[in-house]
Amino acid sequence: MTVLTSSFDALWQARYGLPLSEADLPHNAVLQSLLEHRSVRAFLPDALPAGALEAGVAAAQSASTSSNLQVWSVIAIRDPARRARFAELSGGQRHIEQAPLFLAWVLDLSRLRRLGDAREQATDGLDYLETFVVGSVDTALAAQNAAVAFESLGLGIVYIGGMRNHPEIVAEELGLPAGSLVLFGMCVGHPDPALPATVKPRLPQSVVLHHDRYGATDELQQCRAYDEQMQQAQSRQGRAVQPWSEAVVQRVAGPASLSGRDRLREAVAALGFELR
Amino acid sequence: MTVLTSSFDALWQARYGLPLSEADLPHNAVLQSLLEHRSVRAFLPDALPAGALEAGVAAAQSASTSSNLQVWSVIAIRDPARRARFAELSGGQRHIEQAPLFLAWVLDLSRLRRLGDAREQATDGLDYLETFVVGSVDTALAAQNAAVAFESLGLGIVYIGGMRNHPEIVAEELGLPAGSLVLFGMCVGHPDPALPATVKPRLPQSVVLHHDRYGATDELQQCRAYDEQMQQAQSRQGRAVQPWSEAVVQRVAGPASLSGRDRLREAVAALGFELR
Repeated sequence: MTVLTSSFDALWQARYGLPLSEADLPHNAVLQSLLEHRSVRAFLPDALPAGALEAGVAAAQSASTSSNLQVWSVIAIRDPARRARFAELSGGQRHIEQAPLFLAWVLDLSRLRRLGDAREQATDGLDYLETFVVGSVDTALAAQNAAVAFESLGLGIVYIGGMRNHPEIVAEELGLPAGSLVLFGMCVGHPDPALPATVKPRLPQSVVLHHDRYGATDELQQCRAYDEQMQQAQSRQGRAVQPWSEAVVQRVAGPASLSGRDRLREAVAALGFELR
Repeated sequence: MTVLTSSFDALWQARYGLPLSEADLPHNAVLQSLLEHRSVRAFLPDALPAGALEAGVAAAQSASTSSNLQVWSVIAIRDPARRARFAELSGGQRHIEQAPLFLAWVLDLSRLRRLGDAREQATDGLDYLETFVVGSVDTALAAQNAAVAFESLGLGIVYIGGMRNHPEIVAEELGLPAGSLVLFGMCVGHPDPALPATVKPRLPQSVVLHHDRYGATDELQQCRAYDEQMQQAQSRQGRAVQPWSEAVVQRVAGPASLSGRDRLREAVAALGFELR
């Protein structure tokens, strides 16, 4: 279990910058663990507890999967040389070398292709955008359950989108068959207590939660308030201060801001996804 | 909290058809809750506990999000007439009418477009497949955290992929702006104890978990063993018995087996996603 160092009120305050006003908000150990999430990028070299990987995979497989298709795989990478290589391929993220376990989460349509081939039956449905979306969603549901499981054991995780910087090279390094793609990576390990990660504030619930119909009333105003909250949180941590709105708009400015992932469409085609 | 009616060993047995052999597998309330998941399709009409929706959204917002982009929204639909309409649009899934809360999980790039427009800055990066993938993954991570939160409160959930059967109509019903898409729905409510759902067996871990490199050794043999396990589980429940391999290959046979979602590519283009 996560050590309950923070009260639920303090976690709510960290996430939303506001005291928890709803007196009757439910509260239990699972919610506490979920709200405690922070991305960890500084790990101790210690190995994972026995059975932690298998527990994480059981949690991942317990997540929903569309029509029970189970179109994902996960590759557990412990070898330091391989982790160093993936650190480099992800844009020099040292925590991939540092954490004892790196998971490559694979959107994997290849298994159903092999099953169809063995039955001598067509699997043309795999070539549609719909099936790619099913694979992306189901891989993410599985990975998130694993993340929650690892965090419940006191471990820390961080997702690595940088695994999409060079999808073909990553696929080759891992021996992936056609119809599979490393959707993202995940570092797993014991957080370094000397460099603790903090809970990141998020947008007010009123910006992301709508009732019965979509509405964006007051959105810009709420986002400005969030910009200020983020700037306060960042300056408390002695970090560079940039308004959130400015940072996210820069991040999606154009192809040059996508860390080479503007060519993902070409890469997935090369890896055997037609996206019809 | 989920009532701990099943032992951890029994849950492992239900999921994998094998007794838990690893004596030192870690075990806590969070793992128990994750392994207890089953999709619920029979609900009582009772309203959700106070604060359950807000706790679920806080859990969702606590999930990781690529570069803190937060490119998702969620629409809480309680109105019975609207739920009936979505039940119909999803292929006649009665549980959408039955559950007191239906959540439409929205892959939402429109917010960043509005923020860019307000700053008079380009947001051309939103037009790339990469950003669509970020949106799909982050929406799924958020939704899964909400699912875990709801289940920890003793509620049941089921994902509704059928919301992609008619994406443009769904978008119009909900007043979605360009650059947003209901990726999937989720029913949330109190499970009907008269019609209990069961834990669904999954593929053996050795099929989905690889070490250092992808390998599909013994895959067909393992899938055949899983086919038998699924058939046994289904016949115990008095349900139609079809080997898993046969069912999933049929599901992806071709465009006609995709419930109209073979036109998802066209639909997302109409909703303003270029996927360059």
